[in-house]
Amino acid sequence: MAEAAAAPQGLLLAAAFVSDAQYNRNIPFETSPEAVSALWRQENMGSLASPHLSRRGCGNVALLPSSCWLYYLYNHWMIQAATYFFIFLNLSLAVFEEPAVYPLPFLATSLIEVLCLLVFSVRLMHFAKVTPRNIFWKDTKNICVMVAILMSLTDLAVYGTLRIYNVRSVRWSRIVRPIFLINFAESRQIRRAFRSIRNTFPEITYVFLLFMFSVLMFSLMALKLFGERNLQTAEGLPYFTNYLEIVFDLYVLVTTANSPDVMMPAFDFSWWYALFFITYVIINTYIFMSVFLAVVYNNYRKHLKNEIRKLAYMKRRKMVEAFNLLKEEEGAEFVVREAQWKQLVKLVAPDISNSHRELLLHISDDEQKGFIDKKSFVRLADLLNIQVITLKIRRHPLGRWLPHIYNSAASQFLRGMVRHRGFVWTYDVIILINAVFIALDEESPYISYAEWVFLALYIIEILLKVYTYEPRTFFGKNQFWNWFDTLIIFAALTATILNTTLKSTTEYNSQQILDIVFILRVLRLIRIVDSIQRFRVIMNTLINIVPTMLTFGGLTLVVYYVFAIIGMELFQGKIQFFPANSNAPHALECGNPALKDSMFARAKYCKNNFNNFASSFIVLLELTVVNQWHVFANGFANVTVQPAKLYFIAFHIVMVIIIVNIFVSFILEAFFVEYSVEKSEVETAIEQKIQELGMGIQEEELQDEKLLDNMESAEHDLEGEGGTKPPAKGLVFKIASKRYRTVDALLQRMFEAEIPPEDEGPSFEEILNLSPTDAVPSNVTFEAAA
Amino acid sequence: MAEAAAAPQGLLLAAAFVSDAQYNRNIPFETSPEAVSALWRQENMGSLASPHLSRRGCGNVALLPSSCWLYYLYNHWMIQAATYFFIFLNLSLAVFEEPAVYPLPFLATSLIEVLCLLVFSVRLMHFAKVTPRNIFWKDTKNICVMVAILMSLTDLAVYGTLRIYNVRSVRWSRIVRPIFLINFAESRQIRRAFRSIRNTFPEITYVFLLFMFSVLMFSLMALKLFGERNLQTAEGLPYFTNYLEIVFDLYVLVTTANSPDVMMPAFDFSWWYALFFITYVIINTYIFMSVFLAVVYNNYRKHLKNEIRKLAYMKRRKMVEAFNLLKEEEGAEFVVREAQWKQLVKLVAPDISNSHRELLLHISDDEQKGFIDKKSFVRLADLLNIQVITLKIRRHPLGRWLPHIYNSAASQFLRGMVRHRGFVWTYDVIILINAVFIALDEESPYISYAEWVFLALYIIEILLKVYTYEPRTFFGKNQFWNWFDTLIIFAALTATILNTTLKSTTEYNSQQILDIVFILRVLRLIRIVDSIQRFRVIMNTLINIVPTMLTFGGLTLVVYYVFAIIGMELFQGKIQFFPANSNAPHALECGNPALKDSMFARAKYCKNNFNNFASSFIVLLELTVVNQWHVFANGFANVTVQPAKLYFIAFHIVMVIIIVNIFVSFILEAFFVEYSVEKSEVETAIEQKIQELGMGIQEEELQDEKLLDNMESAEHDLEGEGGTKPPAKGLVFKIASKRYRTVDALLQRMFEAEIPPEDEGPSFEEILNLSPTDAVPSNVTFEAAA
Repeated sequence: MAEAAAAPQGLLLAAAFVSDAQYNRNIPFETSPEAVSALWRQENMGSLASPHLSRRGCGNVALLPSSCWLYYLYNHWMIQAATYFFIFLNLSLAVFEEPAVYPLPFLATSLIEVLCLLVFSVRLMHFAKVTPRNIFWKDTKNICVMVAILMSLTDLAVYGTLRIYNVRSVRWSRIVRPIFLINFAESRQIRRAFRSIRNTFPEITYVFLLFMFSVLMFSLMALKLFGERNLQTAEGLPYFTNYLEIVFDLYVLVTTANSPDVMMPAFDFSWWYALFFITYVIINTYIFMSVFLAVVYNNYRKHLKNEIRKLAYMKRRKMVEAFNLLKEEEGAEFVVREAQWKQLVKLVAPDISNSHRELLLHISDDEQKGFIDKKSFVRLADLLNIQVITLKIRRHPLGRWLPHIYNSAASQFLRGMVRHRGFVWTYDVIILINAVFIALDEESPYISYAEWVFLALYIIEILLKVYTYEPRTFFGKNQFWNWFDTLIIFAALTATILNTTLKSTTEYNSQQILDIVFILRVLRLIRIVDSIQRFRVIMNTLINIVPTMLTFGGLTLVVYYVFAIIGMELFQGKIQFFPANSNAPHALECGNPALKDSMFARAKYCKNNFNNFASSFIVLLELTVVNQWHVFANGFANVTVQPAKLYFIAFHIVMVIIIVNIFVSFILEAFFVEYSVEKSEVETAIEQKIQELGMGIQEEELQDEKLLDNMESAEHDLEGEGGTKPPAKGLVFKIASKRYRTVDALLQRMFEAEIPPEDEGPSFEEILNLSPTDAVPSNVTFEAAA
Repeated sequence: MAEAAAAPQGLLLAAAFVSDAQYNRNIPFETSPEAVSALWRQENMGSLASPHLSRRGCGNVALLPSSCWLYYLYNHWMIQAATYFFIFLNLSLAVFEEPAVYPLPFLATSLIEVLCLLVFSVRLMHFAKVTPRNIFWKDTKNICVMVAILMSLTDLAVYGTLRIYNVRSVRWSRIVRPIFLINFAESRQIRRAFRSIRNTFPEITYVFLLFMFSVLMFSLMALKLFGERNLQTAEGLPYFTNYLEIVFDLYVLVTTANSPDVMMPAFDFSWWYALFFITYVIINTYIFMSVFLAVVYNNYRKHLKNEIRKLAYMKRRKMVEAFNLLKEEEGAEFVVREAQWKQLVKLVAPDISNSHRELLLHISDDEQKGFIDKKSFVRLADLLNIQVITLKIRRHPLGRWLPHIYNSAASQFLRGMVRHRGFVWTYDVIILINAVFIALDEESPYISYAEWVFLALYIIEILLKVYTYEPRTFFGKNQFWNWFDTLIIFAALTATILNTTLKSTTEYNSQQILDIVFILRVLRLIRIVDSIQRFRVIMNTLINIVPTMLTFGGLTLVVYYVFAIIGMELFQGKIQFFPANSNAPHALECGNPALKDSMFARAKYCKNNFNNFASSFIVLLELTVVNQWHVFANGFANVTVQPAKLYFIAFHIVMVIIIVNIFVSFILEAFFVEYSVEKSEVETAIEQKIQELGMGIQEEELQDEKLLDNMESAEHDLEGEGGTKPPAKGLVFKIASKRYRTVDALLQRMFEAEIPPEDEGPSFEEILNLSPTDAVPSNVTFEAAA
């Protein structure tokens, strides 16, 4: 390429690379090998991947406007939101289709479904337009979506036709709907989780077969030992006489749901038979279930590591590409000139302040040589990713408007008081007293008056804090607890006032509003957790992993959806719920005589049925919790056929053995990362530079570093106007604490520390094909396992 | 010290150091800093630590015979076994004391207890004699034992005196009995587990408090939401009206034991209330319980690492000390002469063969220089620890006695057939057919005849194998499955013959023998697992961790013992078991009218009581499994007082939240180690040398190395007389596969790989004081957390 002509284009492409590296974007068209030959085309593609960049890219260059707009549209947040809307609309059809929670005519639901499928087709065609053809057709997720659309349409047509002739058939294609949720490019996290499950599958299968072998063997033993004793269960049924029933009972015992009932008849007969069950529980419940967790966790870790490694190499690679586009010769080495670098950063991160950019430049060009070498350049993506909080040392607005009053002795004293530890403690005591009042009886008028006092006290607290601290700092982006407090208290205030008004005007006490008032009142008490440091550490870790937990919410949704659809087809209408005083026939047997004398009817589980989508979800939730699942399985098998139990066993295997274990693995990993990670090299460099430039915060409270390791005290965040000498510029920097980082980001950084700076990693193709076994380093260190 | 005079003494001391390093022994007197000044004395102490060494040490030197004999006695296996015997005798007194399983008069049990305490005192005095005084008195475990002895004696005296005057008092000192199990030096593993628990305690406490805060908050919400609805539970009791009862119910919900029952009344009332319980379960059951596991696991790992590091440094240190005792100058460096080295190895490991010792020498003195340098010398302890199997290529005894017949064409064909894969498959099919026959009805005479056919077939299999393979190899030390098969089949044969004889002679069918026959018959089927490779890998890992699991058995015993004693004092006699057709008053209410209409009586749990030690153990086991524990808690609270529930909550916290989680952590760790460890450097060196010397086994079957990574095929172990060319000496070596190694050993080796060979580690004092936080290396690698 011509060196001179390529300059602005090269810069745009480099910006696209850096931006992709910063956000770990891996859309194929940006990094395909054709990039070099089709520089011009690819530049648009790449730069369009992020909206603000693309606007600039398109605006400046103003070439190929139609293609440009297509890319822009594809990644626009509104289009993405619309896609999500239609995915969830499509999923939510299950609520309105027969058996419906809120019935809609078939015509309405099928029209909505066709509309959704149309939207998905358009979206897919849109994606096909912006992707090179060979890549598009190689991607299984596109094929999946296409097949799902075709299947849904066929099924809908067949069902509709049959319906006209009054032939009932099954809407089987409803179970493919979650495919749209999994396979649209935006839900990368869910896809990764599914990939992880698929990879774990072979190994889990072997352990599962061995486990089933053990269950079958013990069942055989149980048949021989107890089968001919003529024992009876607590319900008076014959005990352990049918092999298949024994297998089911012992499988249930693994989940502990029928312990100790399943053992009692044998135990009553003789002491020694208890040993059989004890051995069984130790081997199958304790050892095998732990082995399942170990296998799932081990695979989760292995594949996570591989994915992270791919991302890290990708990032490194892209930064090197960007460097190569901008490099100029300087002495013996290639470098990037300061002016180029600044232009690049402006393109990539137009939102950061000038002073922040200067700070980054100071760090990258440590010795003020006027250029940046390769090693520093490669770090740019990480530098941009580190959230540097620019704390403007602002004076309190009252201090500006009414300096006389605000700085008076009384005001100073008041502010000093609010900043004092005792203020926090006082309010903790108030919260505790409030808790006691909540627990007391509501009927006494004094207590309902007290509620107003507490509300007033909380509002005074917030006002005092806003008076003392600068309001914009107090309600800063990262001040989770301040937001939480304020919102809860104002919601409680509104609800209480609403409730009182309703009560006094209409004499009618709205139960919904009252419920909300109760909940808000109790939620207020959570604040006390925030004043105890050790609790805050744990809470922060938990809050940190909430976003990733949503991925498991998505995963659970997919599994529940499929099982709910199947469950409704199998069990719909077999079990009915009647209110307590109903005199319908068989009201006590859930409307089905087959349940007479069953555990299901006796435990009054009638409302746990598959009669509509919402009920099914709640039943599946109860099955996930495991306890009493055998009562459900027996109940639904009684009203249909015995093999119906397989549905419940399948759900247990998929949900409890696989997904819950992956969830536990994820929490374990998240906590280990939180416990083990220290500040990264890049962060340390930034902090040093901040201190060198005299723009840092004096961190006096941080003497006790160990205790504060994982958290930031609220005071610390707020001391902008505190006692420390404000620097000349009225501007301080500070690195956002790690509680705002994701687990993925932490893991990635840890892996990067292992890549030597001069290692450019394998080629793009190789990176994409890395397998988890490659990920295990040849020299197994102690760390790896212990 | 005088160089010449110290030679034989130095050698003995060096041998003691090497022996201690080999077995990771850390008895204080061996390595105390006084060692250097009191060389003579310490030499005897050190060498006496291992019986065979000490015999030589004492025999050769024959000085200070009384002290020598004391040490010898202290570590003699018979004395140790006797100590264990008395510990378990003391513990088992609970079976004979009131409330007794097998009652003995008070005089008898108290005499036995005094005898046990006497033995413990003697043992302690013995230990005091062999330990330097200041070390003895600094050791908390000695103090603990003394206090426990005194407490037991006092209590026994008080109880005895009061008994004479017919005043009933409580034998409270019985709960200190497990202290003897924990604190006698032999049970190092249990002490380590307890240390691990103690270390985890502070962190667990914070999470627990936060968790309890969450439970209390939700209970408050539940009281406000449901308390005034006048709802009823399935039993017709008021629903969620008492705060403390709500707290208990919601705590039970965390263990999932009362799901979904606790939710049903609210759910029946309105859909939306299900959301309350769903939120509760997600936060408390899924998230908090996983966090408990994470905290326990993280601490377990951290402390395990620290302990292992201490051991590894200790070993290195001791080997360096041994080297310093034996070193001579050779050119620029210090070395140990070959003759010295041989003498040392003879002292340390008198049992290994000459050829094995030559092999070790070849490895240590790689270039045949006639001396061993420091680096090679330090590896000696590891070399000695690697189990090298000396396979003597023996001809089959029949081949020697009747070579004509044994080597005939028919015999060759037969042996070829037995070695063929098809032989294994045939027997797998036979086992499957056998399983079907076992499941079929026993009454038909054809089927009981078939049993004889199967027995005959199995015996023929064993005979054929012994005919084909060399018998001493077939029943080698490491041939677990061969032993297992043979024992099971001969036991089954004996039991079946005994049963038939009894039946035909006395017409009386002994139930016990029949039960054993059934169990043995089914156990035989396990063999099929061994013919499927992937199953064998998992099985081997499990068999590998059995010894360490016994530690958890000890831990569980201690916790159960304490809770059983307390439980018996609290609940003894409150609940009675009556046989099904009893007409005692309140037989259906377990003899206690307070249980009328309770879940406990309706579920027929009467036999689950604390009326004697064995019953208590079984109840505690059922509580460990968790399910229905609230029924137990409610039942026992009904017959005593409501705060009795605290006993059950305490047990849940100790046993399920702490100990079961440690057990799960242990299994996770064991599996990760199994998955990640490859051959160590030392092992590789040995294998190379074995191959170099032409004494290795041709490992033809090992082409598929990955599949065989974790296991050894039985064929491979047995092919001594196979097709490979026998080496000249008629002797082959082979490293025992890692399935016979312990998790500890694997961990230790992994850490050692991280210590550079020239690092001699910190001093003994520093090693003992290493804390887990030091254990975290300063450069946190990716491995550490991902």
